[in-house]
Amino acid sequence: MVKRPTDLRGVSIRIRILLLFFFEFSIWIEKKMEALDYHAEERRKAEFDLEEMKIVWAGSRQNYEISDRMARLVASDPVFRKDNRTMLSRKDLFKDTLRKAAHAWKRIIELRLSEEEAHMLRSYVDQPAFTDLHWGMFIPAIKGQGTEEQHEKWLPMAYKMQIIGCYAQTELGHGSNVQGLETTATFDPQTDEFVIHSPTLTSSKWWPGGLGKVSTHAVVYARLITGVQDHGVHGFIVQLRSLDDHSPLPGITVGDIGMKFGSGAYNSMDNGLLRFDHVRIPRNQMLMRVSQVTREGKFVQSDVPRQLVYGTMVYVRQTIVSDASCALARAVCIATRYSAVRRQFGSQNGGPETQVIDYKTQQSRLFPLLASAYAFRFVGEWLKWLYADVTQRLQANDFSTLPEAHACTAGLKSMTTSVTADAIEECRKLCGGHGYLSNSGLPELFAVYIPTCTYEGDNVVLLLQVARFLMKTVSQLGSGKKPVGTTAYMGRAEHLMQCRCEVERAEDWLKPSVILEAFEARAFRMSIACAKNLSKFSNPEDGFSELSPDLLEAAIAHCQLIVVSKYIEKLQQDIPGKGVKRQLEILCNVYALHLLHKHLGDFVTTSCITPKQGALANEQLRLLYSQVRPNAITLVDAFNYTDHYLGSVLGCYNGNVYQRLYEEAWKDPLNDTVVPDGYLEYVRPILKQHIRTARL
Amino acid sequence: MVKRPTDLRGVSIRIRILLLFFFEFSIWIEKKMEALDYHAEERRKAEFDLEEMKIVWAGSRQNYEISDRMARLVASDPVFRKDNRTMLSRKDLFKDTLRKAAHAWKRIIELRLSEEEAHMLRSYVDQPAFTDLHWGMFIPAIKGQGTEEQHEKWLPMAYKMQIIGCYAQTELGHGSNVQGLETTATFDPQTDEFVIHSPTLTSSKWWPGGLGKVSTHAVVYARLITGVQDHGVHGFIVQLRSLDDHSPLPGITVGDIGMKFGSGAYNSMDNGLLRFDHVRIPRNQMLMRVSQVTREGKFVQSDVPRQLVYGTMVYVRQTIVSDASCALARAVCIATRYSAVRRQFGSQNGGPETQVIDYKTQQSRLFPLLASAYAFRFVGEWLKWLYADVTQRLQANDFSTLPEAHACTAGLKSMTTSVTADAIEECRKLCGGHGYLSNSGLPELFAVYIPTCTYEGDNVVLLLQVARFLMKTVSQLGSGKKPVGTTAYMGRAEHLMQCRCEVERAEDWLKPSVILEAFEARAFRMSIACAKNLSKFSNPEDGFSELSPDLLEAAIAHCQLIVVSKYIEKLQQDIPGKGVKRQLEILCNVYALHLLHKHLGDFVTTSCITPKQGALANEQLRLLYSQVRPNAITLVDAFNYTDHYLGSVLGCYNGNVYQRLYEEAWKDPLNDTVVPDGYLEYVRPILKQHIRTARL
Repeated sequence: MVKRPTDLRGVSIRIRILLLFFFEFSIWIEKKMEALDYHAEERRKAEFDLEEMKIVWAGSRQNYEISDRMARLVASDPVFRKDNRTMLSRKDLFKDTLRKAAHAWKRIIELRLSEEEAHMLRSYVDQPAFTDLHWGMFIPAIKGQGTEEQHEKWLPMAYKMQIIGCYAQTELGHGSNVQGLETTATFDPQTDEFVIHSPTLTSSKWWPGGLGKVSTHAVVYARLITGVQDHGVHGFIVQLRSLDDHSPLPGITVGDIGMKFGSGAYNSMDNGLLRFDHVRIPRNQMLMRVSQVTREGKFVQSDVPRQLVYGTMVYVRQTIVSDASCALARAVCIATRYSAVRRQFGSQNGGPETQVIDYKTQQSRLFPLLASAYAFRFVGEWLKWLYADVTQRLQANDFSTLPEAHACTAGLKSMTTSVTADAIEECRKLCGGHGYLSNSGLPELFAVYIPTCTYEGDNVVLLLQVARFLMKTVSQLGSGKKPVGTTAYMGRAEHLMQCRCEVERAEDWLKPSVILEAFEARAFRMSIACAKNLSKFSNPEDGFSELSPDLLEAAIAHCQLIVVSKYIEKLQQDIPGKGVKRQLEILCNVYALHLLHKHLGDFVTTSCITPKQGALANEQLRLLYSQVRPNAITLVDAFNYTDHYLGSVLGCYNGNVYQRLYEEAWKDPLNDTVVPDGYLEYVRPILKQHIRTARL
Repeated sequence: MVKRPTDLRGVSIRIRILLLFFFEFSIWIEKKMEALDYHAEERRKAEFDLEEMKIVWAGSRQNYEISDRMARLVASDPVFRKDNRTMLSRKDLFKDTLRKAAHAWKRIIELRLSEEEAHMLRSYVDQPAFTDLHWGMFIPAIKGQGTEEQHEKWLPMAYKMQIIGCYAQTELGHGSNVQGLETTATFDPQTDEFVIHSPTLTSSKWWPGGLGKVSTHAVVYARLITGVQDHGVHGFIVQLRSLDDHSPLPGITVGDIGMKFGSGAYNSMDNGLLRFDHVRIPRNQMLMRVSQVTREGKFVQSDVPRQLVYGTMVYVRQTIVSDASCALARAVCIATRYSAVRRQFGSQNGGPETQVIDYKTQQSRLFPLLASAYAFRFVGEWLKWLYADVTQRLQANDFSTLPEAHACTAGLKSMTTSVTADAIEECRKLCGGHGYLSNSGLPELFAVYIPTCTYEGDNVVLLLQVARFLMKTVSQLGSGKKPVGTTAYMGRAEHLMQCRCEVERAEDWLKPSVILEAFEARAFRMSIACAKNLSKFSNPEDGFSELSPDLLEAAIAHCQLIVVSKYIEKLQQDIPGKGVKRQLEILCNVYALHLLHKHLGDFVTTSCITPKQGALANEQLRLLYSQVRPNAITLVDAFNYTDHYLGSVLGCYNGNVYQRLYEEAWKDPLNDTVVPDGYLEYVRPILKQHIRTARL
């Protein structure tokens, strides 16, 4: 705010010195003010060891250290600056993204970062780019579906980024239904080539990230046709652009699909469209690990189990759950810190008003989201273990746990991403009007996050898969086949149908066993009720479709149970650090009891709990909020986010919010001039009553 | 897609003629295709008279005709084009808005439009602009709070737009708590002036629309100070900018507060910040209808009742409810039409896949929103009546119904806008991946709508006001004071505490009396439960604050009851047109029963219904969805939205979605060049392995 005086002509030396002294002093004061921590008092209230909590959040000390180093690396590098991002035009934003991606790659090479470090660095750059798809989809697709020879040919180029690839699956008319894709790859035995073709408008590839403007190659999914036979959808490596001048190769029409939700956000990505007009590729560019086409045009299935593809799905979805906890934590961090800054109403005798975080309405909306962030973190950690377990079994040709693992990751992907998307918007609302400003960081976080609910399996479609698995599990209960993994609880059918919740006082709800049983009984009884209703239909498919809204609810109940039970398991581990475990227990109870309150109808109508017990849970929940309150700021500090990564004026570490809001405002391009562009043409004629004759 | 050949040099005449014929023919075919109605079959399924339904939606034939005329006027005027809006930079968008506002004003003058027509025209222009605040806040503030002389002086200038005004209330640190505003207006008896001043950073005016770059004047809210006395917050007319050159007047710092949520959306508005450094205005620029300051500096209250201000609030909030139904209808229209175009899964024998609107999961999410649009429409209509009634009573000095009317409009504002905001996002999700594209129209609709949840009363704060009113009403039940208006049902306390729902079969849930009683009993019992819990606290304010999350739920139950009961009242009116009433009955039942299902916990734990009855309601709901299905497209046609106003490729009237998506994509600036800007600097060095030495 304070500016040094610039024009001191005609001012006496004494006054000049005085003035300069005064201004230097003001600037010094201002700097001190900036160094001030507005949250200091909040931070002193914490009842646990922050450093240990940071390690719990990161999963291990090693993770914590890598993550911390990468976050600081990005935050301190001016190229990665992003505070002006939402003001850039599409073209400028895209160019800025190309620059950041190149710079990130340069740093990765210079610093010889490991794959894990590189991945983390990119994620802290926090701007969707073609590299996400190159590393996250193109390379894994070749690794997972390519043969040894294909690995040898393509992977070294891809690792060095001599080629840049994307993943071209979705079409204009086909998203969830991959088997309905229309692009064709017809084998031409004469030339030993596949002819890739887009027969209809709706067969245009649509959405692949990195496709629109950057990728030189793509893994393209197309119907394999040999002779007159259609062998269903397979992957093919197709070069799209010249490696010399980047122009599209003959027969290829490629471009960007246009603006997406929000400013900044995913507009940094060149989601693309792609049409093929009889484009020819050599036969050895079909990804042939699972199926092959021979030189003679014979379609052959290899003995590699097709289930392998599910292993990859488990992996990808596990990372999505882990990302969900990060995004949710980010939103919660912003809302929590700002809720401690913002004051409104409740001033007594002219004193300061009440911090909004002290309002129970605020707590009842915010703290369950804080608890959810931790809950999702822990279930994500467990999914990492699950993936390792599945991989090990696959290598030993044991496919027994795969369907359960697949259903469980599908359900958790769906549930955690849906909750996170809604929660980001809820956090924005919790910031009141100022949450609507771009520099609150929340609008862009929302816009960039929500596609997660659609990609890698639409969330509703995934839940229906879970429901299908649950119905299958229920139908096999009598057969002696024991349900495994996260459905193991269904093996205790008789007990779960009969058990009665024994809560008599509010504090009984603090017992993990009580919570767990209530969630198990509810999930089980909802599945059983669905199964019963399904059995009334003569055609099971009709029944499934007719009852699908109820089945979704049963699937959600099952997924919530998984999260609750994995959190409780986590608490049974040894957790060091003063007060850390205690805080995590409180949050676990908040997580479980807020769900119980939200889905009270489920619990009561299935007679898992009585209305009275529901009221006691609600009472306990209020008490828990009071216990979270003094620790709230420190619980979000544990996420260890830099101000750069948070990208939020409202959520900045030191809480100096209003000063920063005021300063940021002046940076808007509209403030470049005092009188706005357009005043003379469009405002003045109105004011001067010349509008009838004005040329507009 | 087809373009006429332009360069035919060196081509024989015959071939030329042939070619031209061919191209003309293609263009003709294309035009025919465009005229094709992909929804024709859907429209033939309708079981009711569309024209009559349009009139029901519009409220009257006259409304329908005006609205239709204004919508077409805007849609056919190229200046009002908005399909490129989300691609504009902030400055270009703002200039475009100034142009549209000037053009709209020109048309309003040229066509001598009535105030109502002008308002409708502006709303169909569908781009937030300073004029919204000038007409919607500045003029009404002067009308409502100014004296006769002030009207005579200021209104003629404002009506002619010789001055342009805004409404400067909210401050950086003060939103909901108007009484906490810090700006001061100190009377200086020496000069007969007020000195307007911003004493702190947090006292900066922040958010007022139209303030940032355009307004010449503002109604500024400030603490009135005479001598040493603080008389609380009052309104003052303050000139901000020179009428000659538009530069800010001395002592005034004014600017735009920066980018807001999304692209396009509210970024067309110059929400502003404003600081005063001892700015002097004449005494007669205080709005003095209710309170005055005399020449001597004496503060005097006039005999005009202060309650008048509540009348204005009822008016403004009533328009917000009506706007909510419009916004919701718009989102539902897009999602419904696209759900009939989109097909996914379920292809049998190579036939077409299933329209997603046929999936029960889609119906169970979409149709309740369709029903809500109609429900909000009717409650909005009723609120118009309520406002007229209140006004009449105020004029007769009858303030008896005012508190109830105020609580009721506050609650309905909160409830309908919260539901609408969430519903727009839900509709976007219902459109799958393509809903994420800007040209689906839904991202911008969401971004532009959500501030409604915050302005004119934060939705949570408003619900707490409702809860407070409900608790007061309950506490007076014993006193013989009869509850009035929308709380009249509480007068039947004994009955509502004892009544039992008599539903035995699913179809029993179709009876309006059954639905009404269940909603009344639930709302009442929730209020009573809150009152009981409150009575356990020795300090009622502590109790209110501690139990506020429960109180919110009770307030929502009350508001939902109002909407349900007003819908049922509407159905008791004479509604002409074949099948119209029947459709509205179906939607009314969908509205009520989906709420019952969503809040099952409320209904069951208060013993208003049994779990079994809840299951029957759910069963009935499914049957109702099947009845909505054939009418869905026509029910959204009844909103009578032009393609221009909808602004959605997915929601276009004729359903030719994929063709249009494809064509729109090429208009993105990124597609201006085949090789993107930045390729040479940032992509090529990666591909060519020169990144280490590249200058980035």
